[in-house]
Amino acid sequence: MIGHAFMGAAHSHAWRTAGRFFDLPSRPRLTAVCGRSQESVRRAAARYGWESYETDWRRLVERADIDVVDICTPGDSHAEIALAALAAGKHVLCEKPLANSVAEAVAMAEAADRARADGVRSMVAFNYRRVPALALARRLIEEGRIGTVRQVRASYLQDWLVDPEFPLAWRLRKERAGSGALGDLGAHSIDAAQYLTGRRIVSVGALLETFVTERPLPAESSGLSGTAGTERGQVTVDDAALFTARFHGGAIGVFEATRFATGHKNAMRIEVSGSAGALAFDAESLNELAFYDRSEDAGTAGFRRVLVTEPTHPYLDAWWPPGHLLGYEHTFTHQVRDFVTAVADGVDPRPSFAEGLQVQRVLAAVEASSTALGVHIPVTS
Amino acid sequence: MIGHAFMGAAHSHAWRTAGRFFDLPSRPRLTAVCGRSQESVRRAAARYGWESYETDWRRLVERADIDVVDICTPGDSHAEIALAALAAGKHVLCEKPLANSVAEAVAMAEAADRARADGVRSMVAFNYRRVPALALARRLIEEGRIGTVRQVRASYLQDWLVDPEFPLAWRLRKERAGSGALGDLGAHSIDAAQYLTGRRIVSVGALLETFVTERPLPAESSGLSGTAGTERGQVTVDDAALFTARFHGGAIGVFEATRFATGHKNAMRIEVSGSAGALAFDAESLNELAFYDRSEDAGTAGFRRVLVTEPTHPYLDAWWPPGHLLGYEHTFTHQVRDFVTAVADGVDPRPSFAEGLQVQRVLAAVEASSTALGVHIPVTS
Amino acid sequence: MIGHAFMGAAHSHAWRTAGRFFDLPSRPRLTAVCGRSQESVRRAAARYGWESYETDWRRLVERADIDVVDICTPGDSHAEIALAALAAGKHVLCEKPLANSVAEAVAMAEAADRARADGVRSMVAFNYRRVPALALARRLIEEGRIGTVRQVRASYLQDWLVDPEFPLAWRLRKERAGSGALGDLGAHSIDAAQYLTGRRIVSVGALLETFVTERPLPAESSGLSGTAGTERGQVTVDDAALFTARFHGGAIGVFEATRFATGHKNAMRIEVSGSAGALAFDAESLNELAFYDRSEDAGTAGFRRVLVTEPTHPYLDAWWPPGHLLGYEHTFTHQVRDFVTAVADGVDPRPSFAEGLQVQRVLAAVEASSTALGVHIPVTS
Amino acid sequence: MIGHAFMGAAHSHAWRTAGRFFDLPSRPRLTAVCGRSQESVRRAAARYGWESYETDWRRLVERADIDVVDICTPGDSHAEIALAALAAGKHVLCEKPLANSVAEAVAMAEAADRARADGVRSMVAFNYRRVPALALARRLIEEGRIGTVRQVRASYLQDWLVDPEFPLAWRLRKERAGSGALGDLGAHSIDAAQYLTGRRIVSVGALLETFVTERPLPAESSGLSGTAGTERGQVTVDDAALFTARFHGGAIGVFEATRFATGHKNAMRIEVSGSAGALAFDAESLNELAFYDRSEDAGTAGFRRVLVTEPTHPYLDAWWPPGHLLGYEHTFTHQVRDFVTAVADGVDPRPSFAEGLQVQRVLAAVEASSTALGVHIPVTS
Repeated sequence: MIGHAFMGAAHSHAWRTAGRFFDLPSRPRLTAVCGRSQESVRRAAARYGWESYETDWRRLVERADIDVVDICTPGDSHAEIALAALAAGKHVLCEKPLANSVAEAVAMAEAADRARADGVRSMVAFNYRRVPALALARRLIEEGRIGTVRQVRASYLQDWLVDPEFPLAWRLRKERAGSGALGDLGAHSIDAAQYLTGRRIVSVGALLETFVTERPLPAESSGLSGTAGTERGQVTVDDAALFTARFHGGAIGVFEATRFATGHKNAMRIEVSGSAGALAFDAESLNELAFYDRSEDAGTAGFRRVLVTEPTHPYLDAWWPPGHLLGYEHTFTHQVRDFVTAVADGVDPRPSFAEGLQVQRVLAAVEASSTALGVHIPVTS
Repeated sequence: MIGHAFMGAAHSHAWRTAGRFFDLPSRPRLTAVCGRSQESVRRAAARYGWESYETDWRRLVERADIDVVDICTPGDSHAEIALAALAAGKHVLCEKPLANSVAEAVAMAEAADRARADGVRSMVAFNYRRVPALALARRLIEEGRIGTVRQVRASYLQDWLVDPEFPLAWRLRKERAGSGALGDLGAHSIDAAQYLTGRRIVSVGALLETFVTERPLPAESSGLSGTAGTERGQVTVDDAALFTARFHGGAIGVFEATRFATGHKNAMRIEVSGSAGALAFDAESLNELAFYDRSEDAGTAGFRRVLVTEPTHPYLDAWWPPGHLLGYEHTFTHQVRDFVTAVADGVDPRPSFAEGLQVQRVLAAVEASSTALGVHIPVTS
Repeated sequence: MIGHAFMGAAHSHAWRTAGRFFDLPSRPRLTAVCGRSQESVRRAAARYGWESYETDWRRLVERADIDVVDICTPGDSHAEIALAALAAGKHVLCEKPLANSVAEAVAMAEAADRARADGVRSMVAFNYRRVPALALARRLIEEGRIGTVRQVRASYLQDWLVDPEFPLAWRLRKERAGSGALGDLGAHSIDAAQYLTGRRIVSVGALLETFVTERPLPAESSGLSGTAGTERGQVTVDDAALFTARFHGGAIGVFEATRFATGHKNAMRIEVSGSAGALAFDAESLNELAFYDRSEDAGTAGFRRVLVTEPTHPYLDAWWPPGHLLGYEHTFTHQVRDFVTAVADGVDPRPSFAEGLQVQRVLAAVEASSTALGVHIPVTS
Repeated sequence: MIGHAFMGAAHSHAWRTAGRFFDLPSRPRLTAVCGRSQESVRRAAARYGWESYETDWRRLVERADIDVVDICTPGDSHAEIALAALAAGKHVLCEKPLANSVAEAVAMAEAADRARADGVRSMVAFNYRRVPALALARRLIEEGRIGTVRQVRASYLQDWLVDPEFPLAWRLRKERAGSGALGDLGAHSIDAAQYLTGRRIVSVGALLETFVTERPLPAESSGLSGTAGTERGQVTVDDAALFTARFHGGAIGVFEATRFATGHKNAMRIEVSGSAGALAFDAESLNELAFYDRSEDAGTAGFRRVLVTEPTHPYLDAWWPPGHLLGYEHTFTHQVRDFVTAVADGVDPRPSFAEGLQVQRVLAAVEASSTALGVHIPVTS
């Protein structure tokens, strides 16, 4: 595993835990973790249960005792690491968004295609697909329970940038993060919308906005937290991204990704309206799925609050009795379960790098549309 | 009152009831109602408590015993009636949207301006301003409780067109209704967004869609209901309207108006995010306002569910003890109270025809943007 | 109508309005209102639309131009007025609880039985039966949609007495009100529980408590409000009433009525659990009914939020399109509709005085149990 | 650890995980697990990460390489194991309820007192105290944020026994489980109520009910699941327990524990009403705490939905950024953290066996009251 901050903690937990609840074809070994600072990677290894550590990702990628490389770094290093790892014959699990540009993502998807011929697998970590409620939503849509999809409304609402003195963390710098709320949050919404509906977004019209253009440089920084220093720097990414979309096959959607939604901490919400029903989800009520079934008599129809903790629900047979909730990190545990199982079965885990590339193309089209005053831009393919 | 369908019933109730709960400067008399069919207007007069009736609105407008003309007809006749009524020196209350085109709305706003010089008042019936929860939201924003407004998210979700066999009612014909979900529902959202924030929308980028382009012609029709006949006709308005917006002063917003939001009956929702707090409303929980106060300690901050039934809340001193809810028609009663009070006080009731015109300009810009592939179109002024 | 405070305003509205929305066999005339103070009853008559007024209820009861007597006074005068009205051959609608003692209620029920022989009708005003959501719940239970009823949980939560300086209004004096939260709020819960389940309560075990035993005497008082004076008096009723109950046929229930539920304004809640489903209601979400259908597959089962605004729902065909909410006073309008219709049809309106008496017996058993340290006391019959 | 079913899986996870997120004074070693069947305990050891296993708990208790004994068996063996473990000088963590009788619990509390003198610690596993939302509620009450506590309403609603063909699992047999919903669910509510308010329950009046008195004997059984066989046996515990309570200091409460609350899976709910505010919790919304602050202006007061995921919230600094939820098993991880920390610090972990005994006394009083027709029974001390 490369990187050991927020995502690294979550991935480590998943690697340690998946085999304790799921029947895996083989139990993962936490062989080595990699970070640039020897002191902090040493501590991370001890804390998270890794047997060894490296300070140079190239060394880790070359180690013969490693089968899987898990990339938890900021987006600017995804492509280089993934290409090297695939070239070295390692299976790769890469955090989202896949890359910081379409060009990088194309190279990664092509490398993944080549590697596949040698039985080397790759996957991009859109972990919301492993929320049981969303996996259930996908199942219900596949079964036709909401009929023809007409509309999607997706918003991902956070508020950690409302304070103008919040420091200029790496997520606010284009060269590290690629984009702002768009790539960090919007990418999840885009993937979820396409995953749930089974339809690609074909065009987008967008408006990006940066409300606070200058922030204190961080004295030190780590992901979402950090201490403000006295100097200031330019925010080079979007604070909020709004866009409308057309899906292949005729559905339309409206998207919002923002770090300025005062009062919302992690409201990743998505609703899909179909000709026969509707489904709605909010990550702040992680274990619930709202389901409206139009086939019911109008007199007793209504959105049902399905508590997604039944043994028949996706992933739930491994956990607790009905009504006992799962948390955020379970999505990573499920991801490991699916990744390890697919590798052992010799099939491609999903979402593939090609799917990650397609999300990247949507992100690029959103940025292009915003630059072009919002005119609808086709998503290339 | 001209027109006696859905809106006519609501307005009649309001005229009858306002003086029973509020101290009005004068008690309204329900002098005459007007409709084209003698038989049905006669029945409406008896049912709703009007002293007399007319079958030609021109006669009603000319009657000396009438001070106020209340226009409850479809949008295509608003301009003609309003101009005649103002010319005849009658105060005018006109249903929304103000007109079916900017040109008509301009004429109406100009006529309203001229009439004002003679003490004749006019008002457009955006009744959601009279929902106590939204009036409270406006008050809190004016008091600075949410600081600088950054973002608006507004959706108006209905689902009565999901059934493709629902007949082609007048609301689905451009020549009668002007537009579809946009003018019927989106107009409310636009007015509410501008009213709450105190900021005008200056540009919009839009996507309109008609999912079901042909529907059975109605055997008979009345507003939202009707029986399908055997012939089919073209739907000439939008089923759903999505748009992003920029407000004067820097805020941005995302809007959705749709009659295809399966499972939602009348979910007129709006949330305003500011630098110091946030407010959210949903008409399906009509008596509630969600309020997030960023000045609270993070450890106990959270959206509050304010039950807007306290005697200090707008309009509430006239009603019941705390916790006893109001319904939809109260908005019309409050509207009558405000209209009658303003007329008696010799001040202009709000929203004025000029405000109605401005909403019309936004609607026109939305349609123009949609035609122009979503490029952001400035709202003229 | 006798009495013109909070309930008088609600009843007046109902008498004025029922015929405007419902097809009534005859339109009610608001002939006369009665109150002890000439000045205030005169004002009430003008405000609420009564043609005349009286200051002595005996005169009103004897008037030949009156067919119906509507009793909106505190409980201590219900029996005397109702007996006189029935003796005078007037139909009687009486506010709840029916009386302040079982003895009074017995006399009233017997008088109602005698009057019935002459075609004179009587009804007790448990208005929550006329909430569409509760009427729908009753319909669903009658249809067997939740199977055999096992459990009831009912609470009626208000908080207007949390302030110890709230004055000693008439509702806090046993000689006027009979009891406190128990009779005011608990009576509604008891009636609703029996109405919904179709089962009588046969025994109760109770705990009554008065948290604040002394309060300032009111300088003036009216129902729930009032200004505190400087002298203090004894609170002689319960602030909160808790009890468990057994129903005929084997179900059990738990009840809470309180004016000390901080933060709750009028949360009249009831949930019924059955072998095939469950229903839940909260008056602070007046237009919603939660319905759980056990016949659904566990994977998609969940409480549905039914918005009770469909034309097929009880009373709703008279009102607005789906999604447009009703308020508190609609329950009184529905009550008038049902009362007037029953009288015209020559059938007994429900709930009858006998049903009111049975609720009174439950209230008496609750008080007796509380005195007897909570031991389960059978409800006499 | 003794026992490796539902609770064993949760405890194992906690022992493995606590040190990965929290700074523990020492990292727990999972030395040995014990179960009666060699085959299944061997599999459990491998699955859950225990280094060795035993099939006789007496052997485990005597092992020199073990410092802590964690008792996860049904209630009928708690006393014997705990007494032996304490006698052997092992720290003991014991699942709730502490025992199946007051006599056993007395013996355990006395043994814990004696062991304490030798620095041996013991704790009963009321894990809901480690739900961050409830720990936050306790903190707010201690800080006086809701003033003087007046009322508690607590319900623990499950529905897994609604099906009359659900087999007669060990939890339905008095000799194994002690009681039914009362000890399994009600014990949590009692502990939570006393923990939150800081007040002991001093008397209770109760009604216990068994709706389905005969069930199929299980072909095999494990906790909440199992397959029905063809023979039938007697249910010897309560399906539902309702009781009212008086707390030391004047507050009152109402409790319901049931396995017949159709549609509710694990709704452990508790609300505390005070003179200055109120707090409410529902385990089906595990990461939320509702808080009503009466010191707010009535015009903006309302229950706040506090998302308990801020770094300042109890236990949360170890986990994810705000808005990322925790699950059910985190309560066990927090429990291990607190237990291990207390042992290392040489202080008594809470809740102590004495507290567990006091809950047992309340449970006994509830049963005694139910037998005595609900009369309020003092809780002995």
